[in-house]
Parts: sequence; C-alpha cells; structure tokens
Amino acid sequence: MKAARLHTYDEDHLHVDDIPEPKLQGPHDVIVRVGAAGLCRTDLHIIEGVWRGTLDPELPYTLGHENAGWVHEVGESVTAVQPGDTVILHPKASCGVCATCRKGEDMYCPDGPFPGLDSEGGFAEYIRTSERALVKMAPNLEPKQVAPFADAGLTAYRVAKKAARVLPPGSTCVIIGIGGLGHISLQCLLATSAADIIGVDLNPEHRKHAEELGANHAVEGGDGVVERVKELTGGDGVEAVIDFVGEHGTTEQGPAMLKPGGTYFVVGYGGTVSVPALTYIFNEVSTVGTLVGSYTDLSELMELAARDKVRLSMREYPLDDINRSIDDLYAGTFQGRAVLVP
Amino acid sequence: MKAARLHTYDEDHLHVDDIPEPKLQGPHDVIVRVGAAGLCRTDLHIIEGVWRGTLDPELPYTLGHENAGWVHEVGESVTAVQPGDTVILHPKASCGVCATCRKGEDMYCPDGPFPGLDSEGGFAEYIRTSERALVKMAPNLEPKQVAPFADAGLTAYRVAKKAARVLPPGSTCVIIGIGGLGHISLQCLLATSAADIIGVDLNPEHRKHAEELGANHAVEGGDGVVERVKELTGGDGVEAVIDFVGEHGTTEQGPAMLKPGGTYFVVGYGGTVSVPALTYIFNEVSTVGTLVGSYTDLSELMELAARDKVRLSMREYPLDDINRSIDDLYAGTFQGRAVLVP
Amino acid sequence: MKAARLHTYDEDHLHVDDIPEPKLQGPHDVIVRVGAAGLCRTDLHIIEGVWRGTLDPELPYTLGHENAGWVHEVGESVTAVQPGDTVILHPKASCGVCATCRKGEDMYCPDGPFPGLDSEGGFAEYIRTSERALVKMAPNLEPKQVAPFADAGLTAYRVAKKAARVLPPGSTCVIIGIGGLGHISLQCLLATSAADIIGVDLNPEHRKHAEELGANHAVEGGDGVVERVKELTGGDGVEAVIDFVGEHGTTEQGPAMLKPGGTYFVVGYGGTVSVPALTYIFNEVSTVGTLVGSYTDLSELMELAARDKVRLSMREYPLDDINRSIDDLYAGTFQGRAVLVP
Amino acid sequence: MKAARLHTYDEDHLHVDDIPEPKLQGPHDVIVRVGAAGLCRTDLHIIEGVWRGTLDPELPYTLGHENAGWVHEVGESVTAVQPGDTVILHPKASCGVCATCRKGEDMYCPDGPFPGLDSEGGFAEYIRTSERALVKMAPNLEPKQVAPFADAGLTAYRVAKKAARVLPPGSTCVIIGIGGLGHISLQCLLATSAADIIGVDLNPEHRKHAEELGANHAVEGGDGVVERVKELTGGDGVEAVIDFVGEHGTTEQGPAMLKPGGTYFVVGYGGTVSVPALTYIFNEVSTVGTLVGSYTDLSELMELAARDKVRLSMREYPLDDINRSIDDLYAGTFQGRAVLVP
Repeated sequence: MKAARLHTYDEDHLHVDDIPEPKLQGPHDVIVRVGAAGLCRTDLHIIEGVWRGTLDPELPYTLGHENAGWVHEVGESVTAVQPGDTVILHPKASCGVCATCRKGEDMYCPDGPFPGLDSEGGFAEYIRTSERALVKMAPNLEPKQVAPFADAGLTAYRVAKKAARVLPPGSTCVIIGIGGLGHISLQCLLATSAADIIGVDLNPEHRKHAEELGANHAVEGGDGVVERVKELTGGDGVEAVIDFVGEHGTTEQGPAMLKPGGTYFVVGYGGTVSVPALTYIFNEVSTVGTLVGSYTDLSELMELAARDKVRLSMREYPLDDINRSIDDLYAGTFQGRAVLVP
Repeated sequence: MKAARLHTYDEDHLHVDDIPEPKLQGPHDVIVRVGAAGLCRTDLHIIEGVWRGTLDPELPYTLGHENAGWVHEVGESVTAVQPGDTVILHPKASCGVCATCRKGEDMYCPDGPFPGLDSEGGFAEYIRTSERALVKMAPNLEPKQVAPFADAGLTAYRVAKKAARVLPPGSTCVIIGIGGLGHISLQCLLATSAADIIGVDLNPEHRKHAEELGANHAVEGGDGVVERVKELTGGDGVEAVIDFVGEHGTTEQGPAMLKPGGTYFVVGYGGTVSVPALTYIFNEVSTVGTLVGSYTDLSELMELAARDKVRLSMREYPLDDINRSIDDLYAGTFQGRAVLVP
Repeated sequence: MKAARLHTYDEDHLHVDDIPEPKLQGPHDVIVRVGAAGLCRTDLHIIEGVWRGTLDPELPYTLGHENAGWVHEVGESVTAVQPGDTVILHPKASCGVCATCRKGEDMYCPDGPFPGLDSEGGFAEYIRTSERALVKMAPNLEPKQVAPFADAGLTAYRVAKKAARVLPPGSTCVIIGIGGLGHISLQCLLATSAADIIGVDLNPEHRKHAEELGANHAVEGGDGVVERVKELTGGDGVEAVIDFVGEHGTTEQGPAMLKPGGTYFVVGYGGTVSVPALTYIFNEVSTVGTLVGSYTDLSELMELAARDKVRLSMREYPLDDINRSIDDLYAGTFQGRAVLVP
Repeated sequence: MKAARLHTYDEDHLHVDDIPEPKLQGPHDVIVRVGAAGLCRTDLHIIEGVWRGTLDPELPYTLGHENAGWVHEVGESVTAVQPGDTVILHPKASCGVCATCRKGEDMYCPDGPFPGLDSEGGFAEYIRTSERALVKMAPNLEPKQVAPFADAGLTAYRVAKKAARVLPPGSTCVIIGIGGLGHISLQCLLATSAADIIGVDLNPEHRKHAEELGANHAVEGGDGVVERVKELTGGDGVEAVIDFVGEHGTTEQGPAMLKPGGTYFVVGYGGTVSVPALTYIFNEVSTVGTLVGSYTDLSELMELAARDKVRLSMREYPLDDINRSIDDLYAGTFQGRAVLVP
C-alpha cells in the first residue's frame, strides 16, 4: 500500500512509499482503511526533529495521527465494531486496565501506542489500531469532513467543555487564536453555553472568521489587547480566557484579562506562564492546562459534528501530494486544516 | 478605651492610646466588645509601610483584622445578632447587594470596609463592624481560642475545602509550610478527607508539629524536596500541593511535585509561579489561587472548631504588650499565632 | 393609585380599587413604579381560596407577584439602585443575613415577604419591595416583555440550568408541558446546552410551538408516551426529564423514560411521585425538585433575555381588564402568559 | 475442587460438591484462588427463588459474588495482574468498550457476567473472572478481612461518597440501618467528611455499634423517628439521609427528615418512595438511587481499608459450613457479615 513516511530528520519532506499492509497482531487489534488523515503542525515538528529524543520511533515510519476511515478487519476478541463501520480514531490506543483508563481519562494512560507519533500512522491506505480507539460515526458524516477532529478538534472541544462550566449567561470568554483549533472551540462554546465570546487574533482574516462563526466581538491581538478586552467588558475583565497561541506575549495577556475568580485555560505552547503568586491570590484566579481529550470527549464532539453544530474549515489533498500540503501549511495558504485522502 | 494604633510608618511599633469608643453609624452597624484579636504577619507589613499607597488609611488608626468578641450594641435594622452574642468577625464587611455578594463570594465584594486594614481595627476594647460580618459562635468556644480563625484560619480552611474536592481516598496532598496557616489547613484536610498528607517545612519543629497533628509524613523543604516527595509516592507525584510559603523556590517545587491532572494551590506569596505552557498541557495540571474565604467558609470552620476538629496553636498577650508580641513574631519565639486580649 | 385587589374568597374576581400609594418603611425599601405584572395560575388558586390557611394575608390585598418597572423612590441605605433604573423584582425580598441567603439561596430564606402572596403585590401602579429583590435590566428590554420572568421564567430557567449539567452533547432531554414555563425552559436549554430535546404535550398547538422553538421532536402526551419517547431514543430512554405538569400520570411517565443514571426533574405539582426503591437503585436514577430560583438565577435569565435567546409568548391587558385576563386564563384563549399594564 | 452450589429452587440450602476447576477461556480471563467469599442477603433471595426468571442461570451453579483471593493463572493478554497478586473482585466483569465503561461507570455496562448471580461464583476454591474485575490489595490486608467489600462495602462506600458532597462541616447525615452496609457507610463518612451523623436502627445492639463507631447520636427507628431526628437538629431536619432499609416505613420517614435542599439517598429496597410533587418542589429536595459502585469506587474503598479507616465486622465459617452460615444469617446470630473460607 501507499504510505507517506519519514526517512530521516535531515530532510524537510516525506516519501510516498509502497509498503506492506498492516496485519492484526493482538486479539483487540483493528485494521482501518483510512478515509482521510489530518495534517497537524505537530507533523512539521516531527519532520524538523523537534520530538527526536522524546519519541524516537525507528525510521522510516508513517506519520498521521488524525485519522478516520472504515473498519477493514478485526481481531478475535473485538466486540465494539465490525467491518464496514465508519470510525474516527482516538489518537491514544489506551490500555483499558490502568487506574486512569478506569476513570475515563484515556490521555493519562502510560501505556498504549500513539500511532503517527510513536508508531505507524495514518498517512497511508491502512492503519492498525485497537478497538478501544474507535468512535463510530453517524452515517451523515464522511471521514474527510472530520479526520482532524481526532486530535485538533478533540483538544478544542475538551477545553471548551471545561470553560463552559465557568461561563453562565452574561459571562464572557476570550479565545486567543481563531485558527485550526480556535475556530472549532468557538463553535463548541456557542453550542454548549450562552457566554459572550471575544475572538482575538493578529490576522484580520481570522477575526472575520470569528465574527462569521458567531463571536460577539473580534479584536486585534498583540500590544494593547488587554485594554481592548477590558474596554469591551466595562473595565471588569472576563470569566475565562482560552489561549490557543501560548507564546509571543499571550501567556501574559491572557491572565491579565481575567476578573476576580477567573480562569486562564492554556492550550497553545512555546511560552511560559509567569504570574506572581500575589496576583493568583489577590484575584483568586487559576491557570488550567488541557491535554487532548478522552474517548468520551471525542464521542461528544462527534455528536456535535453529526448535528452540524461544529464544522471544520479544511482543504483536501490526495495522499500523493503530501509534500505540497506540508509546504502550504508552512506558507499559510489555506484556512483551517489540511486533510490527506489516500 | 484602649487601642493599639499606628501613628507613622517611620516607627516599628504601635502606640496604646486612649481613644473614644466607636459609635453606631448606619442601621446595620454593630459594636463588638473585643474578646481577642490575632496578630498577623500582614500587621507587620502594614507597620513597615508595605501596604502604604495601596490602602492608605488616615493615620493614626487601629490595627487588628482577626477579631472575636461579644455583641455590645446593634443598629436599628440589625436582626441577625443581639447584644451578648459571642461572635467572630469575618474580615470583610461586605455590602450584600453586589453580584458577588449575591453568589456568596463575599471576598470579591468591591465595597465594604476591611477593619484593621483600611479602617479602625480590633486591637482595642471595642470595634464597629456590620451585621453581615458576624458569625455566631458555639457556646463552648472562647474568643481567644479562635480570633485568628477570622483571617488566617479562614484562608487555611478555604484552600483545604478546594483541595479536598480533588483528593479521594488513596490520593496525597503536600502542604508546604506548617506554620500559622499550614497547621490549621492540615487539620481541616484530616477532618474532611481521607487523603494522605505530606508536610514540608524547613523547620524541624514544624515538621514534628505536622506529624503530631496527623500528617503521614513530614519532609524537609528546600533543595531536593521534589525528589523526596516523589520517592514517598513511588515516583508518581501527588494530586495536590498547597503552598503556604509562595517564595524561596516553593513556586517551582510545588508544580514539579504534581502527577498528571494535579493541582497546585498557591496561598503564600512573594515569589512568581513560572511554568512553561507546555508543562501545563503535557501534564494537564493547574495553578489555583485562593483569597481568604466567604462568610459560609468561616461558618463551616467554626463548626469544625466547635467540634474540636481544628485547634489553634497560640500564645496570649495582654493588649498593653502589643509591641512585645510584635517583637516575638519577628523573632519567631512562639508556635502558631499571637493573640491580643484587651 | 389603582390596584387590583382580592376582597373575599367568596368571589371569583378582583376589584380595581383606588388606594394610597405605598410608602418607604425601612432603610432598604424601594418603591417601584410598576411597568407590567404577569398573571400566574397561582393567582387563580389564591382567588379560589386554595392557599387560604397557608398564607392568609389580611383582606383586601393586592395580588401580582411577577413584577417589573422603574425605581421610583429609595430608602436611605439603598445603594444598589437609583430612581429611574429599569428593574425586575425577584419574588422573594430575602433578608440577606440568614445562612441560606449567605450561600446565595434566596428562596430558602425563612424571612422576608413574598409580595403578591403574603403582602401587597404588583397589580397596581406602585409596589414596595426591598433593594435585595431588584435586578437591573438591560436598556433594550421593556417591563412588559419580561415581567413573567420574575417567577414563571425564573423557575423554568433554574431547572434548565440544573438539567444542562447532566446533558452533554448527544444526550436527550424530555420536556413535559410546553406551556407558560415549558416554552421558556426549552429556550433556556437550547441556549446553554447541545442536548436533543423532545417536547411532550397533549395540545397539538403546544407541540407545534415546541418545534418552532427548536425542539428536535414533539410527541403527544398521555397513554403510550413512554413508548414514543423510548422509540425516539433507540429504546434507551433519556438522560433527563423536566416535568412541568406533575399530575395526570406524568409523575409515573417521567421516571419511566429515564435511562440508567438519569434524572427526573419535577416542577409541576398536583400528583405524587411514587417509584419503588428498587427502581431507584436498579437504574440509579434520581428525582430532583426545584423551587423558583435565586437572585443570581434571575440575573442570568435576564442576560439571556437581553440577548434575545429567550423570548416570552404573552398577551397584554390594561390593569382595568384584570378580570377579563383571569377569565381568558381559565378559558385558555391565549398562548404563553398574560401581562397586566397599569 | 469444592464448591457450594444451588441444585434446585425447591430446597433451602446449598450442596458442597466436588467439581472441576475453572479454566481460562478468553485472552483477558483470570483464575483466582478464592481466599474468602462474603455471604449476602441476596444469596438467600437467590436460594428462595426470588431472582428466578430475572437471572435464571442453568442449575446447578455456584453462588458467591463477594470474592477476594490470589491470582492463580492469567490469560495471554492480561497485563494488569500476575500470579500471586492478592486481589478483590469487582462484582461486574465489565466489557471495557461500551459508552458507560468508557466513562468509568462499570455498573451500567450491559455486557459482562456478574459471577455468583448469573454465572459461576466464589463459594469455591477457584473462580474465573476477567482482568478488568481485579483490584490489587495492599499487602497488609487479607482476603477474609475484606471479601464483603466487593459488593456490600462497595455499595456502602459509593453512597457515602455521593452524600459527602452535600455535607459540609456543621451539616448532619442520618443513616437508617446500621447493619452490614450501614456500619461500613458510617465509617466511610467519618473518614471523608466532618458531618454529624445520626444512626437510626430498631435494634439497640446496632445503635450501640453506631455510637462505638463514632456516630454523634443513635436513635430508635420506627414510629416517631422523624420527630426524634428533628429534635436533635433544632427542628430543622438534616441535609442528607441514607436509607439502607428501604421498607417498613423508612421510605416515608427518610424524605420527611430533610431540610430544604436536602437529599434522600435510597439503597435498601422493598418499599416505594412516594412523595407528593409539591413536597419535592416546596422544599427543593431530591431522591437519589445508588447502584453498587464503579471499579474506581472499589479501589478507593480498599485504600480506606488499607489505612484501617474502614473495618468490617464479620464472622468466619469454613466453606463446608455454608449451610450453617445461611441458617445463622436467617437467625441474625452474628454482627456484620458472614465470610466463607474454602
């Protein structure tokens, strides 16, 4: 089968190779025929060698950790799916028996592969995963509409779910960064809360996108953004900030926008969240990290997608054009996410 | 009446003056005969001029914001208490009509005095406050046993209450700093959760105190404390850290002790909580500030005190010896808190 | 001033009398010029003598407990509002100092009047209430658009807020009774959750209304309704039922529609909720009562109204036509609620 | 091996037979050498034929659903345990892939056996279960000390955990029935909350037991119990009632003891909880069912047991004496639970 593989960290692109199809190995294994796989900025980081040393899979290997498709073949103990089912793959094939799996917190599972990062991924015609990774999709959804929900969308949903709990009617949430994750999170919040939303972005196209999707306001990021947000809230600040940027000053601006009791949710990274202890105390504010999402989170996101309450902005590429999609992501020539179709 | 007052920021002590007794001014005012008033490190900071410019009350004025006593006289609209009632004073005489008061979050109230900080306090024979500040005490409690619960104890209780929610049986909480606040918080956690507790302190006396009060372990603070805590938890780290120090390295050590999903509660201040966004995300941890406590929090703490589940370590001084108590607090010559009795 | 008053329980109507305007009595009193007052089925019950013995105000007295208008005059200690403010009146003028008020649960306050039930109400040109009862309204709202939110709407909002907590995306809520309260609750749920909603009503007009407002399904109440709901959910049942009827069989049908772990919220009354202990246990279900709502609940509802996310279906009557509005409510000749304008 | 089996519903006892040892069948199966198995009132009901028609396992079969012991042999895919581990068996061998398992709610799993009820149980030398059912035990615990925690204890813990959330310091919980479950639940509440506890029982021995374990009060059940509880709480009633009886009037008494906002937790069964809708609303009270418990609940309970915070009152019998233990349970000749040791 065809697969887009990383051969060496010294190149800046992948090779579309012809390799054997994956085979079932354990009783709960499932082979999925890939319908679509999302391209993520993390893929660029892997190619650049940023994760070398942390993950270090044996090269060459196939990238692609945002996968959806159809069940092709199932192991002998599989009961949850059957061949032909349309599925999206939770990125972590969690073990199911550790303490964190038993609480439903799949992402904390210390075992289990993360295909596309530490083992063979989905930029290919077939992928092997485990039964526990598979969420069945509603019949009105196609793999290429939703593949990036497997990771980017899941992260965006989980943080929106956490934020919605502190956002009663009349409260306000700032979303910093209305890109691939931000535009999904914004829709999730609109679907599950009545909070006012202020979109923040440096890019005027993204601000326009925020308003089209239903943000109450869209303001320019960067210098003076704290004042602009405060002005929109009568000087009070906001109940919650979700930061999808996490660098270039946003880790200072985010906490500074909060009113007493507020929460700064950090999703993007690169920077450091540096806040005096006195500020945490004096305003009783919190900084809350968020890590991808659980199986249940992904199931809930797919319910929103099935009801057309969350829709992905994306651009489709054939798998053979993987390197063009990578160039375009670097160049920023499309809105939302790139999706590879084998 | 006698009152210990600050005359100028250029001295390092207070003056015991003879001044007129306070009088009722509004319909909800209450005059309390002071039974005892706790001395707090914040009082030292006020004397040192640290809060000058932030609070700036007209000098001379009476310090003392941890007060308990007996209702002496009540305004015409007062219904909640009557003369003779034994009471402890919530430090914030909140307004009762703002949005935050209506949610029960008294500390966020932007109005209302904070006697002893921005108006006449309790190092005196009588103090004026408002009906809404008064929590009635069980008959088995005396003012001098509990006065420091009004602020120090309240802060210690609120953070223990927050922490208990993330501490099921089998989980572990680190308490950094087993001093005036820490020794109360430790007792509150023991009373309301089954979590294991690791006390951390530089001072061996304090570590011994932690063990006497029921901590499962007491370890030395400072260099290597993260490793010591990890060793006690099989390398996993802990579900929660409560930091009553907030400087001298603890704001780095605290977050580093957490297991995935853990929470760092910051109460002490002076330092800066500086954590890479990637760390917040990768381990899905949180930093949570805490601000004194609500009226309901204080009521609950007094219920613990009435049942002898929380007991204050303290040393009693006559009001005339206020300056000696200040010297002793600087010198660290007593365990727990100093209490002034007029 | 004009006021619609109950003279005796032996008549079936009110008298529009000319009586003196109310005067300020306490320091926190506020006189409100009534802009509109909602007519509630409870008013009919009062006239019929149903509440006689429970409330027993001295006759004659003025009914009307769903009031909105403009602040006319304020007591000397009032700080939260000033003359000219547009306000809606929380039905309970709570005391502000009892344990339940301090937690924000105004409805549990054992003191404080409930104007229109136990003291002079709002079917009049002016009404006396207390500062703590007043929620300021957004400038784009008029009293006659919102007066019934003071009680009917508040009850509908509070239960929707409770239900939303157990309704993640993909879950389903049944609302039994799409009348005065039900049509508001349905809008509140749509605004604050992504749950699917099934409206249940005997009246085809009401079912049509449910669908127009956004319910996913509307099914006929009565015999067989449990089966109809189960069929719509693949035999599983639903996560939540909100019952605004509470009699004529709904207290049996509601619990029977639940899936394991589900919650039956009961708001309407008349019947008895009679469920075998074994059923509660075997399916781990709950029955949850709900009582009007808090000040904060009302504030949040007004935020929804200000954003046009909840809109009241109503019919306006001049105060002089109070008895016609009563007749029409008995006859069921209008949709939603009747509103009296003095 | 020896096994105590039910041959027919027409006898009132079991037969100790010699049958073949169970064998591994699936990749996640585990054979456990039984250390101890608790005798439960449900076993009596099975023998009496009460569950005939509901469960209907093929006769003869082995009873015993409260099991603990040592891992003897593991299937090829088992990773969570290894031979020699001391374990307690969660009663439901849940599937791990259904929506409810993925949320950590094992008891809602529609698949998976419940050994001792619908398949071969633990009144034997060996039992087959699945990896997901096994909680590893601390080295200081022996199977016979804890076997009844697998079901009775788990149920008692889960409801205590739910109740603790609504029981801040100063609140009161009534526990109706201080028998096999009640005496465990009481200890769980004492370990995880600071609530006052009122034990209610008809049996003076049980009331004495409640007081010895730390209940603040123990009052006689039956007629007048509501008044006795109200008197102890100054006429107010209590925040929570946990009812382990669920018949003979307790389903009426329980709800009647609540203060506004209170919760009636029902665990025992036989009776019907029949409460007017108006009562639910007027006092905003709830009735909450509870169903055994999750894997995580059982893990937490074992942590309490390992710290000696919960201790089982029990009487040990050799497996050969199974019918004597049954007779003694009918006769009520021991405190707490009977435990069979093979």
